[in-house]
Amino acid sequence: MQIRIGIMGYGNLGRGVECAVRQNPDMTLAAVFTRRDPKTVSILTEGVPVYPASQALEHKDEVDVLILCGGSATDLPVQTPEYARHFHVIDSFDTHARIPQHFAAVDDSAKAGGKVAVISCGWDPGLFSLNRLYARAILPQGADYTFWGKGVSQGHSDAIRRVEGVADAKQYTIPIQSALDAVRSGSEPELTTRQKHLRECFVVAKEGADKAKIENDIKTMPNYFDEYDTIVHFISQEELDRDHSGIPHGGFVIRSGKTGWEGENTHIIEYSLKLDSNPEFTTSVLLAYARAAYRLGQEGVSGCKTVFDIAPAYLSPLSGEELRAHLL
Amino acid sequence: MQIRIGIMGYGNLGRGVECAVRQNPDMTLAAVFTRRDPKTVSILTEGVPVYPASQALEHKDEVDVLILCGGSATDLPVQTPEYARHFHVIDSFDTHARIPQHFAAVDDSAKAGGKVAVISCGWDPGLFSLNRLYARAILPQGADYTFWGKGVSQGHSDAIRRVEGVADAKQYTIPIQSALDAVRSGSEPELTTRQKHLRECFVVAKEGADKAKIENDIKTMPNYFDEYDTIVHFISQEELDRDHSGIPHGGFVIRSGKTGWEGENTHIIEYSLKLDSNPEFTTSVLLAYARAAYRLGQEGVSGCKTVFDIAPAYLSPLSGEELRAHLL
Repeated sequence: MQIRIGIMGYGNLGRGVECAVRQNPDMTLAAVFTRRDPKTVSILTEGVPVYPASQALEHKDEVDVLILCGGSATDLPVQTPEYARHFHVIDSFDTHARIPQHFAAVDDSAKAGGKVAVISCGWDPGLFSLNRLYARAILPQGADYTFWGKGVSQGHSDAIRRVEGVADAKQYTIPIQSALDAVRSGSEPELTTRQKHLRECFVVAKEGADKAKIENDIKTMPNYFDEYDTIVHFISQEELDRDHSGIPHGGFVIRSGKTGWEGENTHIIEYSLKLDSNPEFTTSVLLAYARAAYRLGQEGVSGCKTVFDIAPAYLSPLSGEELRAHLL
Repeated sequence: MQIRIGIMGYGNLGRGVECAVRQNPDMTLAAVFTRRDPKTVSILTEGVPVYPASQALEHKDEVDVLILCGGSATDLPVQTPEYARHFHVIDSFDTHARIPQHFAAVDDSAKAGGKVAVISCGWDPGLFSLNRLYARAILPQGADYTFWGKGVSQGHSDAIRRVEGVADAKQYTIPIQSALDAVRSGSEPELTTRQKHLRECFVVAKEGADKAKIENDIKTMPNYFDEYDTIVHFISQEELDRDHSGIPHGGFVIRSGKTGWEGENTHIIEYSLKLDSNPEFTTSVLLAYARAAYRLGQEGVSGCKTVFDIAPAYLSPLSGEELRAHLL
């Protein structure tokens, strides 16, 4: 029994889903949907149709779970409620402040269509959220900390590219070792934004641009950089392409807590990710939840879910007996 | 609405439950059951009754969830099926090979009684199992590794105490740094038992005992030590009591895996625990699952569950809305 996967949007995430399907023997790539002219979209998998996004509903009987690979700013707020009426869907919606309203819209639609929708899936939100939940439930008296990186922030890289005189740029978010060490000591430190992360920028300046001004414009940029210590390196386009073309990321969720009659014992729970490819790892998470959504749908469940609502066993291709015998 | 917790067996785990209840405002300690004469058992919490274990069923209306704090060898195989007929129960059964038969016995009994039983709960089995499941589901092409320690192994300490000429002993299981480093590199190394862990023993010899013989007896002990590099230190009882009275433990679950069309990208998922008190942390996990068992029971669920079967949200005192707003 194969789970037929559809991809909506063929960018970095879409290609990640395509690669991940090959690693899951219980899944098949059934279709790719794109807003571009399908004739211009060349996918990696042989024999799989590429359809216009506008015709997705005509193919709904060919797809069990549709993975929505659009952006959180404008694509997903429209797409997820729209498609959740017709497909089980998974998205990686990550605009934190809008999650409640996104959840409500998707829930209405998925329930109306009798489908399962998993939103805000991936690693943060996603696996990191899970670890915050488990760790807080287990150690109620304590503090937790999320660190991101070392990794590429697409949003910050884009912000630098909008600075006058900048031709291209890549920004790395880097957790500060002394902050990690303080958290791991169990001392429950209060950490400012500046104490937790460093921002390192590799910038290609346009010919004749004022580098001192560029550096100042970056370091003082509100919200993006002004609350951080920021390092700016000017390099050539060749160097940027050669040394900074990857999309690595990762991070840490650490909770320390006290137990005992007088809180005399300290415990540290740490979860970390070190990822060569942010989009490929993210889509690997999406596919595990696609399996869960499909199974929940088979059981007659419908509505919007997050990683919090789904029992871990649904993610694994193994049966309950196999899980208990081999992984417990 | 308070969840009324009962403790069956008042040793290290029982005391751990008692301490953890104080940290969870939605829980109350309702009763402690003991096989000793209740008059000889002095608990920390004022005003909570201590009853003979034999009278547990007479008090079943006073307790919502009974935490079974006995041992896996002889207590839990009898107690869990017995009490699962009358209470929601949680145990930390950790005899791996017998989990399937334990599950079956407890499932029959819990279903007959309309109760929820969570077995094999704690950190391994428990949180480590969860992390093995999540990581394998997400990175199907890879390898995972579990390391334990640095921490006290009660079983190995007991084994040393049975050696002729030994008055007292404590054994630490220690993960080997080079093995951890190799795993974290993503190289998916094949590691022997000896390459993964070291065993360090602190031994108090009886007066006049042959220390060379004791050391040899320990190092060559089948199953417990013969497959490991083992370090034996002879110390005084005073030193043992002063420096080795704690019950620390912890460990690591690490999975590395490949993604991409040709497996060109590597990812490392690491989960680690560093625990001052193994029993207090274990019981903190048991209590989070007690909340889950109680809620599942309220929903009319019955039968035996493991950590694999329970959606994370059930562990948290927060509502779905609160979780999505603050932890996702």
